[in-house]
Amino acid sequence: MRAPALLLIDEPAAGGTAGFVEAPHDAPVVRAMNFAVTRGDGIFETVGVHDGVPHDVEPHLDRFELSARMLELPEPSRDAYRAAIARAVELINEDGTPPTAFVKCIMTRGVEGTDAGPTGWVYAGLYPDMTPVRTTPARMVTLTSGFALGIGAEAPWLLLGAKTLSYATNMAAKREAVRRGADEALLITTDGYVLEGPQSNLLVRHGDRIVTPAPDGGLLHGTAQRAAYDFFSSQGLSTEYGHVPVASLADADGIWITNSVQLVRPIGWIDGNEIPFDADLTAGLVDYLVRRPDGS
Amino acid sequence: MRAPALLLIDEPAAGGTAGFVEAPHDAPVVRAMNFAVTRGDGIFETVGVHDGVPHDVEPHLDRFELSARMLELPEPSRDAYRAAIARAVELINEDGTPPTAFVKCIMTRGVEGTDAGPTGWVYAGLYPDMTPVRTTPARMVTLTSGFALGIGAEAPWLLLGAKTLSYATNMAAKREAVRRGADEALLITTDGYVLEGPQSNLLVRHGDRIVTPAPDGGLLHGTAQRAAYDFFSSQGLSTEYGHVPVASLADADGIWITNSVQLVRPIGWIDGNEIPFDADLTAGLVDYLVRRPDGS
Repeated sequence: MRAPALLLIDEPAAGGTAGFVEAPHDAPVVRAMNFAVTRGDGIFETVGVHDGVPHDVEPHLDRFELSARMLELPEPSRDAYRAAIARAVELINEDGTPPTAFVKCIMTRGVEGTDAGPTGWVYAGLYPDMTPVRTTPARMVTLTSGFALGIGAEAPWLLLGAKTLSYATNMAAKREAVRRGADEALLITTDGYVLEGPQSNLLVRHGDRIVTPAPDGGLLHGTAQRAAYDFFSSQGLSTEYGHVPVASLADADGIWITNSVQLVRPIGWIDGNEIPFDADLTAGLVDYLVRRPDGS
Repeated sequence: MRAPALLLIDEPAAGGTAGFVEAPHDAPVVRAMNFAVTRGDGIFETVGVHDGVPHDVEPHLDRFELSARMLELPEPSRDAYRAAIARAVELINEDGTPPTAFVKCIMTRGVEGTDAGPTGWVYAGLYPDMTPVRTTPARMVTLTSGFALGIGAEAPWLLLGAKTLSYATNMAAKREAVRRGADEALLITTDGYVLEGPQSNLLVRHGDRIVTPAPDGGLLHGTAQRAAYDFFSSQGLSTEYGHVPVASLADADGIWITNSVQLVRPIGWIDGNEIPFDADLTAGLVDYLVRRPDGS
């Protein structure tokens, strides 16, 4: 059994260079009054590691910095996080390359009642075999996010589009989907548009056109989604971002969700409607996402 | 300098009785993959300790249990939390009674990737002198919550009314209020009703009537707010819960916010409107809330 890896980001006093130190993966390393614990007040990224190679490290670090700005956190020490990710991947590959692993990067506002500044760490762990998830059509239900489209631009304090540690409602939406007999939840707006899954982006096919809800609508711009667009373009499909009405899902010619670890999951059923499943196209997409040369 | 106190809830294997163990307050006690850290997936309560006496322990534990049900967490070991709160108060009082302290109770879903079950702890710390906050009229601005009134009942996965660890947007709303030159934020609905502050409840006076936004509208039922109602009733004012239009705030005869540690803060200005400040009534309210005999 391969052990996970934990690397603590070491933010020095002013003038020094940030680095990292290795720690036992199951050691308690977070204080009870860390803002991550008491307020979910921090940010994260999850880098997928496929056949031993971390994918999209720089886009993840870009989004990490964007989330930090949205939460008014200090700028993450990008070099330290990048080096820690590389070392975490080395450690997780040490006993042979696992097919799927993840590297989670976290930065928090620090510890309440101290001036010690932000805390951060990088954690690498294994995932089970994702092949069944990537190739078997799943069932999805829509759930309201409670928000109207575009509220994020009007009310930046809602932090829509930031990847924060405050994910309790995302986890509750996942449980609600399972309670309704589905595998996945899809969050929608009160005015009838599609947003995203609690941990995924949505891609909808109509004919030769693939559309994904626009990131400016109050959601995350997915790294795996962008890679999927490269694949679909290579297959002669057109790709675009737009406002996707919930009503347009029922007669879709294909639906997929993407995230960095699963990479892709086809949807074969949504809110009672069967969705066509193209096994060959999906297999090609999975193969591309796992192996694409620009994955590191 | 008095040290804070930290007590870890000890959940035994099936059949045993939960207890607690004392730990150094600044020791790292939380694992990097605890759901509190990775997902803000847990619940909390903050008990106010005034002149050495913890207030409203049982109502706080009631709400803790309600939050656990809303998040589908196991039922907290109430006796263990109650005993840990009592011990935390003993410890914080050891070197003489501080005027204001807090006891924060946390329970999380446990550690991702393990079946170890929930983790919890109780942390007691000191607050600075709250007298100026309780007696000086503050400035408040309204900020949209992004939600319409009543969405919580329709969409329980939004966890409105649960006291979760996912408070990043609450903290962002507080920063936005300060950016706008105010001391406090007040969250309102998209359809023009008042909800609550990021960490407080609102009480509005019109003539001899005090109204607080109804807890069924998607907000927390405050423990200090309920105690304030007892005081206002004793002063011959009528108290009620209702739907409070934002438009009704401008001509209020008095506005206060309440929470367990501050207890009460008078509001003298909201969104550009001066609000009358009754210094005597406020002083009486503060005195009642600090000293009320049913505080423990």
